[in-house]
Amino acid sequence: MRAAVMRDKQIVVDTVPDPVPGSGEVLVKTLACGICGSDLHMLQHAEKMMQSMRETGAPSVPNLLADVVMGHEFCAEIVDFGPNTLKRLPAGTRVVSMPISFHGGKLQAVGYSDDVPGGYGELMVLTEPMLLEVPNGLPTEHAATTEPMAVGVHAVAKANVTPRDAALVVGCGPVGLAVIAGLRLAGVETIVAADYSPMRRRLATHLGATAVADPKEQPPIEAWRAAAGSKGCVLFECVGVPGVIDQLMRVAPPQSRIVVAGVCMEDDTIRPSFGINKELNVQFVLGYTPDEFAKTLRALAEGQIDVAPIITDKTGIDGVAGAFRALANPEAQAKILVEPWR
Amino acid sequence: MRAAVMRDKQIVVDTVPDPVPGSGEVLVKTLACGICGSDLHMLQHAEKMMQSMRETGAPSVPNLLADVVMGHEFCAEIVDFGPNTLKRLPAGTRVVSMPISFHGGKLQAVGYSDDVPGGYGELMVLTEPMLLEVPNGLPTEHAATTEPMAVGVHAVAKANVTPRDAALVVGCGPVGLAVIAGLRLAGVETIVAADYSPMRRRLATHLGATAVADPKEQPPIEAWRAAAGSKGCVLFECVGVPGVIDQLMRVAPPQSRIVVAGVCMEDDTIRPSFGINKELNVQFVLGYTPDEFAKTLRALAEGQIDVAPIITDKTGIDGVAGAFRALANPEAQAKILVEPWR
Repeated sequence: MRAAVMRDKQIVVDTVPDPVPGSGEVLVKTLACGICGSDLHMLQHAEKMMQSMRETGAPSVPNLLADVVMGHEFCAEIVDFGPNTLKRLPAGTRVVSMPISFHGGKLQAVGYSDDVPGGYGELMVLTEPMLLEVPNGLPTEHAATTEPMAVGVHAVAKANVTPRDAALVVGCGPVGLAVIAGLRLAGVETIVAADYSPMRRRLATHLGATAVADPKEQPPIEAWRAAAGSKGCVLFECVGVPGVIDQLMRVAPPQSRIVVAGVCMEDDTIRPSFGINKELNVQFVLGYTPDEFAKTLRALAEGQIDVAPIITDKTGIDGVAGAFRALANPEAQAKILVEPWR
Repeated sequence: MRAAVMRDKQIVVDTVPDPVPGSGEVLVKTLACGICGSDLHMLQHAEKMMQSMRETGAPSVPNLLADVVMGHEFCAEIVDFGPNTLKRLPAGTRVVSMPISFHGGKLQAVGYSDDVPGGYGELMVLTEPMLLEVPNGLPTEHAATTEPMAVGVHAVAKANVTPRDAALVVGCGPVGLAVIAGLRLAGVETIVAADYSPMRRRLATHLGATAVADPKEQPPIEAWRAAAGSKGCVLFECVGVPGVIDQLMRVAPPQSRIVVAGVCMEDDTIRPSFGINKELNVQFVLGYTPDEFAKTLRALAEGQIDVAPIITDKTGIDGVAGAFRALANPEAQAKILVEPWR
């Protein structure tokens, strides 16, 4: 099959062996797959990410320096079945899945594995019990955002955010936008979003932010204060660069919660005394649970989250390398979908 | 009155004006007052602590570079009453109080104020509604530990620790010992305590630790693993020096809570990706609520916390400077009480 392959810190187009569905697996045709910020990061920092996995005691660490077909935000169509499958969903069914596969006797991350190709290739093998049927009527490209949107739904749930809280979302890239959608879904009525990019502030408003701030014009915490009244403070760090956690700890009101959803791979400096003096709570979050993933798909299908404006471009396999470069400009792009069949 | 005064980064004995009880205030004779690690810190870092208060938006910052009579862990006896007092408790009653005073029209920290002297002097003025009578039969020196023990009761409550959790307490100075007592009080059955000092490990066991570890012999998290079974992990950082938060984030099992009770005034370095990969929660804690303070006094009076072995020495005003030096040796001293009437 044709695929966009990560090789030697480059994205190259190549023909790679078709994946073969093993026991309990299903062969699918990739219909659409979003490009995630983590993929951009992986392209530059594969070694560091492998080291981080080792240091945090991951049971097995894939060789990400080998050829890897990335892509973990996908919607696909069932093509064929491996042995020991139930065939509950027939061939032709559109499906999404958490990007986790029980392949070769171990748990693997689809799109971050040298063994299990992800959605930047024409075909994938997925684990049958993980498949969720895309409800009829939900466009394929919206279904493909289930994964990134579930990240926001999870972050909000993990922080136990309630309608009595007022949220400040710092950074309105895909993670921040997903958090805003998750907050809206949870019934939070005060959602302040901060980003330097006018386009991202517009998208934030579209997804449910009730106020936006340009940090160049106004400290985001001031915008939060103006909107929050006596509500509790939950701050979402959705930037993922060193220094942001410390900055939020400095400005957070006493008893605030800070939810760290931005992935910063570097060492970072904080001043613990700010945390202590104000009894802050810092909740780091990652991923989602299976029920949060399914709930997100339902919310998309029922129109509770409208992701249409987030999808700013679509491309084929040949355009993946260029799309990675284009995503560096926050004013031009939010989410780019890869359609490998083009 | 005679007092041990913090002046130019030294503790000196001097005669200072007797405090005069204002409206709603009560004059008390200090019976016993514990020396807190924060006082040792204050002696060296008063400027930094003032700066930290300013940066975290404290409503008023006392001048801690002026003469200050420190001491905020006290038991005292009512001597006289200011105007507008209810005199609910008669003169001669032994009392404790949260070290907070409404003096001169503003909230002040007793013992960290250039206006309100603390317990290293013969007399104090306290705010009448804050006074709690020491239950008959509770020795004065035990009542004086209400404040430091309440810190542990609060840390445990703030982290919502339940009997389904297994705790690891890193550092068994007065804060760590108070946390262990608080865990025991909350019904936690698995309490692992780590400290380099054999004496402190003995005190930890006395206060309720079910296992102890010498970090020189065994990584504390291994001792925790051996004891915890399938229980949830709550780690208490009770050391307060740079690097410990990061170290705990590295070894913590996924979904752990880290409670930061040790006060580190310096900048500190963490690796956020450890927090993210394991979805850690970091709860910074400070102080206690009025009901936690009262609950701690009751627990002491009812024998649920036995602090007797923690009190390793007693001294008069002339011995305060020497006691500050002695507390630097964790093998020799845990809690030293000042008895200004000696």
